[in-house]
Amino acid sequence: MSLLCVGSVAYDVIELPGQPPVEVLGGSATWFTTAAGFFARPQLVGVVGDDFREDDIEFLRGRGVDVAGLERKPGLTFRWHGRYHDDLIGRDSLRTELGVFAEFSPVIPTEWRRPDILFLGNIHPALQTLVLAQCRDTPFVALDTIQCWIEGARAELVRLMPRVDLLFLNDDEVRLLTGQNHLPTAARTILAMGAKALVLKRGEHGASLWTANGVALIPAWPVDRLADPTGAGDCFAGGALGYLDLVKDTSPDAIRRAMAVGTVVASFCVEGFGPRSLGAIRPAQVGRRLSDWLEAVSFDAGRVLKDIEIG
Amino acid sequence: MSLLCVGSVAYDVIELPGQPPVEVLGGSATWFTTAAGFFARPQLVGVVGDDFREDDIEFLRGRGVDVAGLERKPGLTFRWHGRYHDDLIGRDSLRTELGVFAEFSPVIPTEWRRPDILFLGNIHPALQTLVLAQCRDTPFVALDTIQCWIEGARAELVRLMPRVDLLFLNDDEVRLLTGQNHLPTAARTILAMGAKALVLKRGEHGASLWTANGVALIPAWPVDRLADPTGAGDCFAGGALGYLDLVKDTSPDAIRRAMAVGTVVASFCVEGFGPRSLGAIRPAQVGRRLSDWLEAVSFDAGRVLKDIEIG
Repeated sequence: MSLLCVGSVAYDVIELPGQPPVEVLGGSATWFTTAAGFFARPQLVGVVGDDFREDDIEFLRGRGVDVAGLERKPGLTFRWHGRYHDDLIGRDSLRTELGVFAEFSPVIPTEWRRPDILFLGNIHPALQTLVLAQCRDTPFVALDTIQCWIEGARAELVRLMPRVDLLFLNDDEVRLLTGQNHLPTAARTILAMGAKALVLKRGEHGASLWTANGVALIPAWPVDRLADPTGAGDCFAGGALGYLDLVKDTSPDAIRRAMAVGTVVASFCVEGFGPRSLGAIRPAQVGRRLSDWLEAVSFDAGRVLKDIEIG
Repeated sequence: MSLLCVGSVAYDVIELPGQPPVEVLGGSATWFTTAAGFFARPQLVGVVGDDFREDDIEFLRGRGVDVAGLERKPGLTFRWHGRYHDDLIGRDSLRTELGVFAEFSPVIPTEWRRPDILFLGNIHPALQTLVLAQCRDTPFVALDTIQCWIEGARAELVRLMPRVDLLFLNDDEVRLLTGQNHLPTAARTILAMGAKALVLKRGEHGASLWTANGVALIPAWPVDRLADPTGAGDCFAGGALGYLDLVKDTSPDAIRRAMAVGTVVASFCVEGFGPRSLGAIRPAQVGRRLSDWLEAVSFDAGRVLKDIEIG
């Protein structure tokens, strides 16, 4: 199988409460591929400036990421400067410097144009459309977006929906996109817009997977320490799609199992700072927490239902 | 088995956003026994005034509740007047009129003094202590409390902990009682205080069960309509303990299964208004949603772990 990711590769300047700003490797494609690297050898398409450090490319290579689609252009790499509130959940964007990303027009290498799984990371819906046009025959498309595009490029985003097999949105985004405040109604509205499945993310409160067949509930692992939530959503997607690539299966059953993997990989993301911190997690640690998570949501359904019937 | 509940029986005056105040049957013992009535024939100890309506007693009897321990005293029944915020989660207590509850000193009928399961609903910890003194040999004690008692009767509450097999607290309460902001740390602190197990409730965000053996994660069912959250915590406890009574088992495995039942019963509570609304739910509806919930948290653990090991 092949897993292609198109998204941003960036430097983030992050201010955590009571700490000075720190610049760290970031971007949706960076986080996604770092996470997917636990299970797959993802292909990355993106753009960086001539300030992008060679050791950051080496880091990605070390994660098993194929960076042949990472263009280097004259100019500066995309930079996002964010300041987190005391709760480490709310945040303000202080500055966004697009740099070479302003002119980004993704060109998918010819031999990558029929990936088994395509992840359209958070970039302008027009660019996501452009990628899809190049990967016309890809059988499985996942898409992430943010408030900015829902507000600023709504029509283009909505037009993409029938092509999306798995959509990732948080609760604010799903409400904004559908105009529905009640989340189950909003989720069903998304399906009616054409997306086959929706992952509704709620940070520390977990996530849910909505399809025509119903809902899966995916509680978040109670992490030892919330260090920095940046990248958690991309790591959820990266863990989940990396798993699908590993098992060579994008059936509804596999997608459901992928949710367990996604939430566990995201839990490691928020415990550390930056993609290197996630990259330092050993696969055995992921396996152990996955086992703990699966045990934590196991309730002996057969027994409960039998008991209740007697009652 | 026998299931004894001691708590308040009250009239609540509830103001939902944009609606006039409505008086409705309420109180921790009322909600608890109404919920437990799906599975058990709970015994209720409480006090009401001479204004308490006969048809409300009939309602409880109709739920299978043994009301032989419900005292009637001259004076007014306990009334709580609350106003919900627009999110239907936050609320302000506008008025509390204790009425006959001010002098409540629970006397457990002699033949009820060794219940298999005892639920100490939200009343003053001194009264909970008094009940425990009368039910010295009861093998399983569950306890609920609120911020008011954590602040005002902390020492008495803490002294009770080693007697508690299952403690119900929400996230604010567990933080207040332990002084720990990080919930997993707070939960472990509760266990160190002597309680054998903690149910940490987070409303629409679900709950978690903490024991020496680890954690169970209990996502909330995405309800069709959040009508009124009053009583949800007591319904969680009532559903869970009613199930334990039904299966005649208070082992750690049974407690974990009981969490599924508790969260599903609570989900029906918040969709309606007042205990009668919950009482109108048919057992088959509970069974169906329980089946849906169990399906929604089922992730084929064996398969996932096998897949990951290959990776």
